[in-house]
Amino acid sequence: MNDHVYKQIELTGSSTQSSDDAIRCAIGRASKTLRNLHWFQVIDTRGQIENDKIVHWQVTIKVGLRIDE
Amino acid sequence: MNDHVYKQIELTGSSTQSSDDAIRCAIGRASKTLRNLHWFQVIDTRGQIENDKIVHWQVTIKVGLRIDE
Amino acid sequence: MNDHVYKQIELTGSSTQSSDDAIRCAIGRASKTLRNLHWFQVIDTRGQIENDKIVHWQVTIKVGLRIDE
Amino acid sequence: MNDHVYKQIELTGSSTQSSDDAIRCAIGRASKTLRNLHWFQVIDTRGQIENDKIVHWQVTIKVGLRIDE
Amino acid sequence: MNDHVYKQIELTGSSTQSSDDAIRCAIGRASKTLRNLHWFQVIDTRGQIENDKIVHWQVTIKVGLRIDE
Amino acid sequence: MNDHVYKQIELTGSSTQSSDDAIRCAIGRASKTLRNLHWFQVIDTRGQIENDKIVHWQVTIKVGLRIDE
Amino acid sequence: MNDHVYKQIELTGSSTQSSDDAIRCAIGRASKTLRNLHWFQVIDTRGQIENDKIVHWQVTIKVGLRIDE
Amino acid sequence: MNDHVYKQIELTGSSTQSSDDAIRCAIGRASKTLRNLHWFQVIDTRGQIENDKIVHWQVTIKVGLRIDE
Amino acid sequence: MNDHVYKQIELTGSSTQSSDDAIRCAIGRASKTLRNLHWFQVIDTRGQIENDKIVHWQVTIKVGLRIDE
Amino acid sequence: MNDHVYKQIELTGSSTQSSDDAIRCAIGRASKTLRNLHWFQVIDTRGQIENDKIVHWQVTIKVGLRIDE
Amino acid sequence: MNDHVYKQIELTGSSTQSSDDAIRCAIGRASKTLRNLHWFQVIDTRGQIENDKIVHWQVTIKVGLRIDE
Amino acid sequence: MNDHVYKQIELTGSSTQSSDDAIRCAIGRASKTLRNLHWFQVIDTRGQIENDKIVHWQVTIKVGLRIDE
Repeated sequence: MNDHVYKQIELTGSSTQSSDDAIRCAIGRASKTLRNLHWFQVIDTRGQIENDKIVHWQVTIKVGLRIDE
Repeated sequence: MNDHVYKQIELTGSSTQSSDDAIRCAIGRASKTLRNLHWFQVIDTRGQIENDKIVHWQVTIKVGLRIDE
Repeated sequence: MNDHVYKQIELTGSSTQSSDDAIRCAIGRASKTLRNLHWFQVIDTRGQIENDKIVHWQVTIKVGLRIDE
Repeated sequence: MNDHVYKQIELTGSSTQSSDDAIRCAIGRASKTLRNLHWFQVIDTRGQIENDKIVHWQVTIKVGLRIDE
Repeated sequence: MNDHVYKQIELTGSSTQSSDDAIRCAIGRASKTLRNLHWFQVIDTRGQIENDKIVHWQVTIKVGLRIDE
Repeated sequence: MNDHVYKQIELTGSSTQSSDDAIRCAIGRASKTLRNLHWFQVIDTRGQIENDKIVHWQVTIKVGLRIDE
Repeated sequence: MNDHVYKQIELTGSSTQSSDDAIRCAIGRASKTLRNLHWFQVIDTRGQIENDKIVHWQVTIKVGLRIDE
Repeated sequence: MNDHVYKQIELTGSSTQSSDDAIRCAIGRASKTLRNLHWFQVIDTRGQIENDKIVHWQVTIKVGLRIDE
Repeated sequence: MNDHVYKQIELTGSSTQSSDDAIRCAIGRASKTLRNLHWFQVIDTRGQIENDKIVHWQVTIKVGLRIDE
Repeated sequence: MNDHVYKQIELTGSSTQSSDDAIRCAIGRASKTLRNLHWFQVIDTRGQIENDKIVHWQVTIKVGLRIDE
Repeated sequence: MNDHVYKQIELTGSSTQSSDDAIRCAIGRASKTLRNLHWFQVIDTRGQIENDKIVHWQVTIKVGLRIDE
Repeated sequence: MNDHVYKQIELTGSSTQSSDDAIRCAIGRASKTLRNLHWFQVIDTRGQIENDKIVHWQVTIKVGLRIDE
């Protein structure tokens, strides 16, 4: 991080597989419409349970993106 | 919340009536330009006082919106 | 703050000079694309060190902007 | 609170009416199976939005109950 | 808020009616002895329960008051 | 989450495999005695080290369960 | 803590003697109905004042208990 | 706490004896100029070390006092 | 800090110059009516923006003052 | 943890594989120069993104080590 | 604290006697290898329970030490 | 930050000039005995007041240093 300005946005991704995968999901979706994704930070890790199993891992992250001049 | 990706934005609404009404105000305004509003969480409740009366309730919320594919 | 609705966004500015200057940098950059910037709040103050000197002050702020009707 | 021992439990109530009413709902439900409810503290206020309206206020509270000897 | 200095004090008001009313109660009482009340921020929302009903809403707020020159 | 009341309990599960697996362990054990498990939230992730290896991942979660009428 | 599952509960004990004694009081009471108490963590230390003396120390703790298979 | 309004003030007391005694010290001093002290809450526990011994326990508390009509 | 009792008060100062100057402003104002100011701690740093410039730095501090016997 | 004294240090490990692996990396590196590593606690989970992929998972942990007599 | 630089380290001491004694234990142990211990701050107070009694008080503190030139 | 391991230490620097200068002071002192200082984060900003003037700015920072292989 040098003399750029960065914007942080907050996203929640979900996955049936794992907490790490829910993060990858959120970043994959964000990259479709946003450029210059630079880092993420985990804010909250949750999940939904059905029939005593975790059916969705849901991870909320902040994503930092560099604002182009 | 299943296999969608959600984005959270932070808004402050105000009302002369009540704290709940300030939340409704923020959501009402957001719905004019954003689709798929899904949930909110209260972050901060404040207000302005004039002549010893509350003249504005100001409530800051996070609003989660589903990002369409 | 009266009967407007405000949106908060989170930005990180950087400066080789000072922590205050990193804030001015973030606001200056934001003002190129956003209207009605109204207030800011400091969230995090960091910096990068090279050869035992601070080479970049990096300050993360929330910026509140009034949403026009 | 004098020389009793208290236990705190965490509940989430919901209401279509208001945030205060969601708290009353949680306490009303708790009182069906628990005795000696003594105080509550609000932990989190959320809600669900459908068609740009708040359809459920959801308030999480800690409820303190006196443990009888 | 321009070039004044403000002092914050912390008050707890109570009401048999609602959480908003407990805030009004604290501000009403503060205004009897303090001038230039300017804003408030909710710090904590609690209540007392008797016979499974909320008998007092108790809300703790910070109140900002402008210090006259 | 609609018009039900939910109770949250706090559990710590452990696993020799991974942090995600410690969560599954806690939920699996809870499901033996509790019905209607609905969601979880990660509160704390820890672990024990022996001979410079992680021998147990220990994850503390809040589990929300719907209280049947 | 190895491959067991633990549950945490939150208790408030009180004592006319000292803050440490209020903790012992909460644990003593909990042990009458709960088995396998394992550790505690202090959450909040408060007290009541009458005639300018502390008449009750009130300490809120989380107690971790091992859930037997 | 019923229909009174309470004010909280923040004090730091010190003692050469113990952390509990530093709290008693702060309350004893406050009672010389303030009436209706009602409860306290511990905010921070610190101390000073000289020659590898604790020479002062310093405990910061919030003290709640009832405001007479 | 030895065997005195200290009181903390919360102030917000403002400055058109810098964040440090807003702190000096609050302390300068406080010293007109309060004796024995001893230390401060920064609680919050904010500012107001007009025409894309910071027009006021607003810093909230806790100020500790020694209570004379 | 019985009658030993423990020291906590804060480390950030990184991995191209997973969040759990970044923790293992930090502990593996610490074990080269420190003895008696005993437990860890996750403080922060971050990562770097390049070309819309997570290229490094970066996890900050506190590591507790027993101080030998 | 004047123009010195201080380093903070985090220690956990334990005692079979009391929470205050666990702090003295940590400082006593630290003083065997570190010079210029200056102050401490309590971070966390925990304990282990066996047979429904507290067998170890475990208190985590930050210790500030002056770095000599 | 790529595949290195980083250690964070906590330092407090002081300055008679400004808050930024107190940070530079802490880093300057740390660089005399530690290599590979990489970044810092501000944890706490305080100061001492004498005769109603700030005589020392005291800023506590975390400093991240890369651990060489």
